[in-house]
Amino acid sequence: MKKFRIGLIRVLTSDDQDFIDIHGRFIEERFPHLEVESRCIPDQWEGIHNHELKRIAIPKIVETAKGFKDVDMILVSCADDPGVREIREALPGIPVTGGGETTAALASRYDGKVGVLGIVDYAPEAYERMLSGRIIVAKPENVDSTLDLTTPQGRENCLKTGQLLKDAGAAVIALGCTGLTTIGITKDLEDFVGIPVIDPVLAQGVFACFEAVRRMS
Amino acid sequence: MKKFRIGLIRVLTSDDQDFIDIHGRFIEERFPHLEVESRCIPDQWEGIHNHELKRIAIPKIVETAKGFKDVDMILVSCADDPGVREIREALPGIPVTGGGETTAALASRYDGKVGVLGIVDYAPEAYERMLSGRIIVAKPENVDSTLDLTTPQGRENCLKTGQLLKDAGAAVIALGCTGLTTIGITKDLEDFVGIPVIDPVLAQGVFACFEAVRRMS
Repeated sequence: MKKFRIGLIRVLTSDDQDFIDIHGRFIEERFPHLEVESRCIPDQWEGIHNHELKRIAIPKIVETAKGFKDVDMILVSCADDPGVREIREALPGIPVTGGGETTAALASRYDGKVGVLGIVDYAPEAYERMLSGRIIVAKPENVDSTLDLTTPQGRENCLKTGQLLKDAGAAVIALGCTGLTTIGITKDLEDFVGIPVIDPVLAQGVFACFEAVRRMS
Repeated sequence: MKKFRIGLIRVLTSDDQDFIDIHGRFIEERFPHLEVESRCIPDQWEGIHNHELKRIAIPKIVETAKGFKDVDMILVSCADDPGVREIREALPGIPVTGGGETTAALASRYDGKVGVLGIVDYAPEAYERMLSGRIIVAKPENVDSTLDLTTPQGRENCLKTGQLLKDAGAAVIALGCTGLTTIGITKDLEDFVGIPVIDPVLAQGVFACFEAVRRMS
Protein backbone atom coordinates (compact mmCIF):
# COMPACT_ATOMS: atom_id res chain seq x y z
CA MET A 1 0.00 0.00 0.00
CA LYS A 2 1.43 3.40 -1.02
CA LYS A 3 2.01 5.71 1.95
CA PHE A 4 -0.56 8.46 2.42
CA ARG A 5 1.31 11.71 3.04
CA ILE A 6 0.13 14.18 5.66
CA GLY A 7 1.27 17.72 6.27
CA LEU A 8 0.75 18.36 9.99
CA ILE A 9 0.79 21.85 11.47
CA ARG A 10 1.83 22.44 15.09
CA VAL A 11 0.44 25.68 16.49
CA LEU A 12 3.13 25.90 19.15
CA THR A 13 6.46 27.33 18.01
CA SER A 14 9.62 25.37 18.77
CA ASP A 15 13.11 25.19 17.31
CA ASP A 16 13.39 21.52 18.33
CA GLN A 17 12.28 19.37 15.38
CA ASP A 18 12.04 16.30 17.64
CA PHE A 19 9.47 18.14 19.73
CA ILE A 20 7.62 19.36 16.64
CA ASP A 21 7.47 15.77 15.38
CA ILE A 22 5.79 14.32 18.51
CA HIS A 23 2.24 14.36 17.12
CA GLY A 24 3.36 13.08 13.72
CA ARG A 25 5.30 10.20 15.26
CA PHE A 26 2.30 9.37 17.48
CA ILE A 27 0.18 9.02 14.32
CA GLU A 28 2.83 7.09 12.32
CA GLU A 29 3.37 4.58 15.14
CA ARG A 30 -0.33 3.77 15.22
CA PHE A 31 -1.06 3.91 11.49
CA PRO A 32 1.96 2.58 9.59
CA HIS A 33 0.53 3.47 6.17
CA LEU A 34 0.47 7.18 7.05
CA GLU A 35 3.57 9.36 6.64
CA VAL A 36 3.63 12.69 8.43
CA GLU A 37 5.69 15.81 7.78
CA SER A 38 5.36 18.26 10.69
CA ARG A 39 5.94 22.01 10.69
CA CYS A 40 5.21 24.62 13.34
CA ILE A 41 4.00 28.18 12.89
CA PRO A 42 6.45 31.00 13.77
CA ASP A 43 6.40 33.26 16.83
CA GLN A 44 3.77 31.50 18.89
CA TRP A 45 5.88 30.21 21.77
CA GLU A 46 2.89 29.70 24.09
CA GLY A 47 0.70 28.09 21.44
CA ILE A 48 -2.97 29.07 21.41
CA HIS A 49 -4.76 29.48 24.71
CA ASN A 50 -7.15 32.35 24.09
CA HIS A 51 -9.22 33.84 21.27
CA GLU A 52 -6.69 36.59 20.51
CA LEU A 53 -3.83 34.11 20.09
CA LYS A 54 -6.06 32.07 17.78
CA ARG A 55 -6.83 35.13 15.64
CA ILE A 56 -3.13 35.93 15.29
CA ALA A 57 -2.27 32.31 14.47
CA ILE A 58 -4.74 31.75 11.63
CA PRO A 59 -2.90 33.56 8.79
CA LYS A 60 0.35 31.89 9.87
CA ILE A 61 -1.36 28.49 9.81
CA VAL A 62 -2.67 29.11 6.29
CA GLU A 63 0.82 30.14 5.13
CA THR A 64 2.34 27.02 6.69
CA ALA A 65 -0.29 24.87 4.94
CA LYS A 66 0.60 26.44 1.60
CA GLY A 67 4.25 25.54 2.19
CA PHE A 68 3.77 21.75 2.12
CA LYS A 69 4.72 20.00 -1.14
CA ASP A 70 3.09 16.76 -2.35
CA VAL A 71 0.91 16.04 0.64
CA ASP A 72 -2.41 14.15 0.38
CA MET A 73 -4.01 15.81 3.39
CA ILE A 74 -3.43 18.60 5.90
CA LEU A 75 -4.00 18.34 9.65
CA VAL A 76 -4.03 21.29 12.03
CA SER A 77 -2.92 19.62 15.23
CA CYS A 78 -4.97 21.69 17.66
CA ALA A 79 -8.33 21.01 19.35
CA ASP A 80 -9.57 24.44 18.36
CA ASP A 81 -9.14 23.73 14.61
CA PRO A 82 -7.62 27.17 13.97
CA GLY A 83 -7.40 27.89 10.26
CA VAL A 84 -9.09 24.67 9.13
CA ARG A 85 -11.86 26.51 7.27
CA GLU A 86 -9.42 29.10 5.94
CA ILE A 87 -7.07 26.41 4.55
CA ARG A 88 -10.03 24.69 2.88
CA GLU A 89 -10.78 27.95 1.09
CA ALA A 90 -7.14 28.61 0.22
CA LEU A 91 -6.38 25.07 -0.96
CA PRO A 92 -9.54 23.53 -2.41
CA GLY A 93 -9.21 19.92 -3.50
CA ILE A 94 -7.08 18.77 -0.58
CA PRO A 95 -8.72 17.25 2.51
CA VAL A 96 -8.16 19.37 5.62
CA THR A 97 -9.18 18.71 9.19
CA GLY A 98 -8.02 19.29 12.74
CA GLY A 99 -7.92 17.79 16.21
CA GLY A 100 -11.17 19.44 17.30
CA GLU A 101 -13.83 18.45 14.80
CA THR A 102 -12.41 14.92 14.58
CA THR A 103 -12.48 14.48 18.37
CA ALA A 104 -16.03 15.81 18.52
CA ALA A 105 -17.05 13.42 15.72
CA LEU A 106 -15.53 10.38 17.46
CA ALA A 107 -17.08 11.45 20.78
CA SER A 108 -20.50 11.78 19.16
CA ARG A 109 -20.60 7.99 18.70
CA TYR A 110 -20.83 7.46 22.46
CA ASP A 111 -24.05 7.81 24.43
CA GLY A 112 -24.28 10.26 27.33
CA LYS A 113 -22.50 13.44 28.38
CA VAL A 114 -19.07 14.36 26.99
CA GLY A 115 -16.57 15.79 29.47
CA VAL A 116 -14.21 18.32 27.87
CA LEU A 117 -10.82 18.54 29.56
CA GLY A 118 -8.52 21.22 28.22
CA ILE A 119 -6.47 24.25 29.16
CA VAL A 120 -9.21 26.87 28.87
CA ASP A 121 -12.59 27.18 30.56
CA TYR A 122 -14.53 27.14 27.28
CA ALA A 123 -14.98 24.19 24.92
CA PRO A 124 -13.25 24.33 21.53
CA GLU A 125 -15.52 25.64 18.77
CA ALA A 126 -16.22 22.26 17.14
CA TYR A 127 -17.19 20.65 20.47
CA GLU A 128 -19.75 23.40 21.09
CA ARG A 129 -21.12 23.14 17.56
CA MET A 130 -21.15 19.36 17.14
CA LEU A 131 -21.96 18.22 20.69
CA SER A 132 -24.13 21.10 21.84
CA GLY A 133 -26.19 20.32 24.92
CA ARG A 134 -24.07 17.27 25.67
CA ILE A 135 -20.85 18.79 27.03
CA ILE A 136 -19.44 19.53 30.48
CA VAL A 137 -16.25 21.62 30.55
CA ALA A 138 -13.57 21.62 33.24
CA LYS A 139 -10.09 23.08 33.33
CA PRO A 140 -7.32 21.76 35.59
CA GLU A 141 -6.19 24.15 38.32
CA ASN A 142 -3.09 26.22 37.55
CA VAL A 143 -2.96 25.04 33.95
CA ASP A 144 -3.28 28.00 31.63
CA SER A 145 -1.12 27.11 28.67
CA THR A 146 0.11 23.93 27.07
CA LEU A 147 3.47 24.47 28.82
CA ASP A 148 1.85 24.16 32.28
CA LEU A 149 0.83 20.60 31.37
CA THR A 150 4.43 19.43 31.37
CA THR A 151 4.91 19.75 35.16
CA PRO A 152 4.08 16.86 37.58
CA GLN A 153 1.54 19.14 39.27
CA GLY A 154 -0.09 19.94 35.92
CA ARG A 155 -0.35 16.23 35.17
CA GLU A 156 -1.87 15.42 38.54
CA ASN A 157 -4.39 18.24 38.21
CA CYS A 158 -5.44 16.81 34.84
CA LEU A 159 -6.19 13.42 36.38
CA LYS A 160 -8.21 15.08 39.17
CA THR A 161 -10.16 17.09 36.63
CA GLY A 162 -10.96 13.92 34.69
CA GLN A 163 -12.42 12.39 37.85
CA LEU A 164 -14.41 15.55 38.46
CA LEU A 165 -15.89 15.33 34.96
CA LYS A 166 -16.85 11.70 35.50
CA ASP A 167 -18.43 12.57 38.86
CA ALA A 168 -20.40 15.30 37.09
CA GLY A 169 -21.90 12.67 34.77
CA ALA A 170 -19.51 12.42 31.81
CA ALA A 171 -19.69 9.04 30.03
CA VAL A 172 -16.68 9.83 27.85
CA ILE A 173 -13.91 12.45 28.00
CA ALA A 174 -12.86 14.44 24.95
CA LEU A 175 -9.48 16.05 25.48
CA GLY A 176 -9.69 19.74 24.63
CA CYS A 177 -6.00 20.33 23.96
CA THR A 178 -3.43 18.43 21.90
CA GLY A 179 -0.85 19.38 24.53
CA LEU A 180 -2.38 16.53 26.54
CA THR A 181 -1.21 14.14 23.82
CA THR A 182 2.24 15.70 23.96
CA ILE A 183 2.49 14.77 27.66
CA GLY A 184 1.15 11.26 26.92
CA ILE A 185 -1.61 11.36 29.50
CA THR A 186 -4.49 9.76 27.56
CA LYS A 187 -4.04 6.14 28.67
CA ASP A 188 -3.19 7.06 32.29
CA LEU A 189 -6.26 9.27 32.44
CA GLU A 190 -8.46 6.52 31.06
CA ASP A 191 -7.08 4.04 33.62
CA PHE A 192 -7.56 6.61 36.38
CA VAL A 193 -11.17 7.56 35.58
CA GLY A 194 -12.38 4.33 33.97
CA ILE A 195 -14.28 5.87 31.05
CA PRO A 196 -13.14 6.22 27.43
CA VAL A 197 -10.89 9.19 26.65
CA ILE A 198 -10.68 10.59 23.13
CA ASP A 199 -7.28 11.92 22.17
CA PRO A 200 -7.37 14.72 19.56
CA VAL A 201 -4.11 13.74 17.86
CA LEU A 202 -5.33 10.17 17.52
CA ALA A 203 -8.73 11.42 16.36
CA GLN A 204 -7.22 13.35 13.47
CA GLY A 205 -5.11 10.27 12.66
CA VAL A 206 -8.28 8.18 12.47
CA PHE A 207 -9.78 10.64 9.98
CA ALA A 208 -6.55 10.55 7.97
CA CYS A 209 -6.91 6.76 7.86
CA PHE A 210 -10.42 7.19 6.55
CA GLU A 211 -9.23 9.67 3.92
CA ALA A 212 -6.35 7.37 2.92
CA VAL A 213 -8.62 4.45 2.00
CA ARG A 214 -12.01 5.85 1.20
CA ARG A 215 -11.44 6.11 -2.55
CA MET A 216 -9.91 2.64 -2.87
CA SER A 217 -11.91 0.51 -5.28
CA MET B 1 1.54 -5.26 15.22
CA LYS B 2 -0.75 -8.00 16.55
CA LYS B 3 -3.95 -8.33 14.53
CA PHE B 4 -7.06 -6.83 16.09
CA ARG B 5 -9.86 -9.38 15.81
CA ILE B 6 -13.38 -8.34 14.87
CA GLY B 7 -16.58 -10.36 15.00
CA LEU B 8 -18.81 -8.94 12.26
CA ILE B 9 -22.53 -9.67 12.10
CA ARG B 10 -24.38 -9.65 8.79
CA VAL B 11 -28.12 -9.07 9.22
CA LEU B 12 -28.94 -10.69 5.89
CA THR B 13 -29.12 -14.48 5.89
CA SER B 14 -27.12 -16.38 3.29
CA ASP B 15 -25.69 -19.87 2.97
CA ASP B 16 -22.82 -18.55 0.83
CA GLN B 17 -19.87 -17.77 3.12
CA ASP B 18 -18.15 -15.80 0.32
CA PHE B 19 -21.13 -13.48 0.25
CA ILE B 20 -21.26 -13.25 4.03
CA ASP B 21 -17.57 -12.30 4.02
CA ILE B 22 -17.93 -9.34 1.62
CA HIS B 23 -18.02 -6.63 4.32
CA GLY B 24 -15.24 -8.28 6.32
CA ARG B 25 -12.98 -8.54 3.26
CA PHE B 26 -13.74 -4.90 2.42
CA ILE B 27 -12.47 -3.91 5.87
CA GLU B 28 -9.44 -6.22 5.83
CA GLU B 29 -8.31 -4.97 2.41
CA ARG B 30 -8.31 -1.39 3.66
CA PHE B 31 -6.98 -1.97 7.19
CA PRO B 32 -4.44 -4.81 7.08
CA HIS B 33 -4.03 -4.93 10.88
CA LEU B 34 -7.70 -5.85 11.33
CA GLU B 35 -8.88 -9.46 11.05
CA VAL B 36 -12.59 -10.08 10.56
CA GLU B 37 -14.70 -13.15 11.22
CA SER B 38 -18.16 -12.75 9.69
CA ARG B 39 -21.38 -14.52 10.62
CA CYS B 40 -24.96 -13.94 9.52
CA ILE B 41 -28.14 -14.21 11.52
CA PRO B 42 -30.56 -17.05 10.65
CA ASP B 43 -33.88 -16.81 8.78
CA GLN B 44 -33.69 -13.22 7.63
CA TRP B 45 -33.37 -13.74 3.86
CA GLU B 46 -34.45 -10.20 3.00
CA GLY B 47 -32.32 -8.56 5.67
CA ILE B 48 -33.86 -5.64 7.56
CA HIS B 49 -35.97 -3.16 5.65
CA ASN B 50 -38.69 -2.19 8.11
CA HIS B 51 -39.19 -1.75 11.86
CA GLU B 52 -40.83 -5.17 12.29
CA LEU B 53 -37.92 -7.02 10.65
CA LYS B 54 -35.55 -5.07 12.90
CA ARG B 55 -37.49 -6.10 16.02
CA ILE B 56 -37.36 -9.76 15.00
CA ALA B 57 -33.65 -9.56 14.18
CA ILE B 58 -32.40 -8.09 17.46
CA PRO B 59 -32.45 -11.23 19.67
CA LYS B 60 -30.83 -13.21 16.83
CA ILE B 61 -28.11 -10.56 16.54
CA VAL B 62 -27.40 -10.72 20.28
CA GLU B 63 -27.17 -14.54 20.10
CA THR B 64 -24.79 -14.32 17.13
CA ALA B 65 -22.62 -11.83 19.06
CA LYS B 66 -22.43 -14.21 22.01
CA GLY B 67 -21.20 -16.95 19.68
CA PHE B 68 -17.91 -15.26 18.75
CA LYS B 69 -14.80 -16.54 20.54
CA ASP B 70 -11.73 -14.39 21.24
CA VAL B 71 -12.75 -11.24 19.39
CA ASP B 72 -11.59 -7.77 20.42
CA MET B 73 -14.63 -5.95 19.07
CA ILE B 74 -18.06 -6.61 17.59
CA LEU B 75 -19.53 -4.82 14.57
CA VAL B 76 -23.17 -5.04 13.50
CA SER B 77 -22.83 -4.44 9.79
CA CYS B 78 -26.08 -2.56 9.25
CA ALA B 79 -26.81 1.18 9.02
CA ASP B 80 -29.68 0.81 11.48
CA ASP B 81 -27.38 -0.53 14.25
CA PRO B 82 -29.87 -3.24 15.24
CA GLY B 83 -28.89 -4.86 18.51
CA VAL B 84 -25.88 -2.63 19.18
CA ARG B 85 -27.23 -1.38 22.52
CA GLU B 86 -28.49 -4.85 23.44
CA ILE B 87 -25.09 -6.47 22.75
CA ARG B 88 -23.41 -3.78 24.89
CA GLU B 89 -25.68 -4.79 27.77
CA ALA B 90 -25.20 -8.52 27.15
CA LEU B 91 -21.42 -8.36 26.71
CA PRO B 92 -20.04 -5.50 28.80
CA GLY B 93 -16.32 -4.92 28.43
CA ILE B 94 -16.14 -5.49 24.69
CA PRO B 95 -16.41 -2.55 22.28
CA VAL B 96 -19.50 -2.77 20.07
CA THR B 97 -20.63 -0.50 17.28
CA GLY B 98 -22.44 -0.60 13.96
CA GLY B 99 -22.57 0.92 10.51
CA GLY B 100 -25.09 3.59 11.49
CA GLU B 101 -23.64 5.49 14.41
CA THR B 102 -20.16 5.35 12.87
CA THR B 103 -21.40 6.76 9.55
CA ALA B 104 -23.31 9.51 11.35
CA ALA B 105 -20.19 10.33 13.40
CA LEU B 106 -17.95 10.57 10.32
CA ALA B 107 -20.60 12.63 8.48
CA SER B 108 -20.85 15.03 11.43
CA ARG B 109 -17.32 16.26 10.67
CA TYR B 110 -18.48 17.84 7.40
CA ASP B 111 -20.23 21.20 7.21
CA GLY B 112 -23.67 21.49 5.61
CA LYS B 113 -26.59 19.17 4.98
CA VAL B 114 -26.17 15.39 4.99
CA GLY B 115 -28.03 13.47 2.28
CA VAL B 116 -29.15 10.02 3.44
CA LEU B 117 -29.42 7.47 0.66
CA GLY B 118 -30.82 4.10 1.66
CA ILE B 119 -33.52 1.56 0.94
CA VAL B 120 -36.24 3.01 3.19
CA ASP B 121 -37.85 6.45 3.29
CA TYR B 122 -36.77 7.12 6.88
CA ALA B 123 -33.25 7.77 8.12
CA PRO B 124 -31.61 5.12 10.31
CA GLU B 125 -32.02 5.82 14.03
CA ALA B 126 -28.46 7.05 14.65
CA TYR B 127 -28.62 9.51 11.72
CA GLU B 128 -31.79 11.05 13.15
CA ARG B 129 -30.34 11.23 16.65
CA MET B 130 -26.82 12.39 15.82
CA LEU B 131 -27.46 14.63 12.79
CA SER B 132 -30.92 15.94 13.65
CA GLY B 133 -31.90 19.01 11.66
CA ARG B 134 -29.12 18.41 9.15
CA ILE B 135 -30.43 15.47 7.12
CA ILE B 136 -32.31 15.06 3.83
CA VAL B 137 -33.59 11.55 3.09
CA ALA B 138 -34.23 10.03 -0.33
CA LYS B 139 -34.94 6.47 -1.42
CA PRO B 140 -34.20 5.19 -4.94
CA GLU B 141 -37.27 4.25 -6.97
CA ASN B 142 -38.20 0.55 -6.97
CA VAL B 143 -35.60 -0.32 -4.36
CA ASP B 144 -37.29 -1.77 -1.30
CA SER B 145 -34.84 -4.31 0.01
CA THR B 146 -31.11 -4.83 -0.18
CA LEU B 147 -31.72 -7.44 -2.91
CA ASP B 148 -33.19 -4.80 -5.25
CA LEU B 149 -29.85 -2.99 -5.17
CA THR B 150 -28.14 -5.77 -7.09
CA THR B 151 -29.95 -5.09 -10.40
CA PRO B 152 -28.56 -2.63 -13.01
CA GLN B 153 -31.77 -0.59 -12.65
CA GLY B 154 -31.38 -0.49 -8.87
CA ARG B 155 -27.81 0.74 -9.27
CA GLU B 156 -28.81 3.45 -11.76
CA ASN B 157 -31.63 4.61 -9.51
CA CYS B 158 -29.13 4.96 -6.65
CA LEU B 159 -26.92 7.26 -8.73
CA LYS B 160 -29.95 9.36 -9.71
CA THR B 161 -31.02 9.61 -6.09
CA GLY B 162 -27.54 10.79 -5.10
CA GLN B 163 -27.79 13.59 -7.66
CA LEU B 164 -31.23 14.48 -6.33
CA LEU B 165 -29.82 14.77 -2.79
CA LYS B 166 -27.02 17.02 -4.00
CA ASP B 167 -29.51 19.18 -5.91
CA ALA B 168 -31.54 19.44 -2.69
CA GLY B 169 -28.50 20.91 -0.94
CA ALA B 170 -26.58 17.96 0.49
CA ALA B 171 -22.86 18.69 0.99
CA VAL B 172 -22.08 15.07 1.82
CA ILE B 173 -23.93 11.78 1.34
CA ALA B 174 -24.22 9.20 4.11
CA LEU B 175 -25.24 5.84 2.74
CA GLY B 176 -28.20 4.51 4.71
CA CYS B 177 -27.74 0.81 3.91
CA THR B 178 -24.71 -1.46 3.96
CA GLY B 179 -26.19 -3.24 0.95
CA LEU B 180 -24.80 -0.29 -1.01
CA THR B 181 -21.32 -1.38 0.02
CA THR B 182 -22.12 -4.93 -1.06
CA ILE B 183 -22.81 -3.66 -4.58
CA GLY B 184 -19.64 -1.52 -4.51
CA ILE B 185 -21.34 1.73 -5.50
CA THR B 186 -19.63 4.20 -3.14
CA LYS B 187 -16.82 5.37 -5.42
CA ASP B 188 -19.02 5.46 -8.55
CA LEU B 189 -21.59 7.48 -6.67
CA GLU B 190 -18.96 9.92 -5.44
CA ASP B 191 -17.61 10.34 -8.99
CA PHE B 192 -21.16 10.78 -10.31
CA VAL B 193 -22.33 13.41 -7.80
CA GLY B 194 -19.00 15.06 -6.94
CA ILE B 195 -19.48 15.30 -3.16
CA PRO B 196 -18.04 13.01 -0.47
CA VAL B 197 -19.92 9.77 0.17
CA ILE B 198 -19.62 7.99 3.52
CA ASP B 199 -19.77 4.22 3.31
CA PRO B 200 -21.17 2.52 6.44
CA VAL B 201 -18.97 -0.57 6.19
CA LEU B 202 -15.88 1.61 5.86
CA ALA B 203 -17.12 3.83 8.70
CA GLN B 204 -17.33 0.92 11.11
CA GLY B 205 -13.87 -0.16 9.92
CA VAL B 206 -12.53 3.30 10.77
CA PHE B 207 -13.91 3.00 14.30
CA ALA B 208 -12.40 -0.47 14.61
CA CYS B 209 -9.06 1.10 13.64
CA PHE B 210 -9.53 3.64 16.39
CA GLU B 211 -10.39 0.94 18.90
CA ALA B 212 -7.40 -1.16 17.80
CA VAL B 213 -4.85 1.54 18.61
CA ARG B 214 -6.39 3.83 21.16
CA ARG B 215 -4.92 2.04 24.20
CA MET B 216 -1.43 1.76 22.71
CA SER B 217 1.12 3.48 24.93
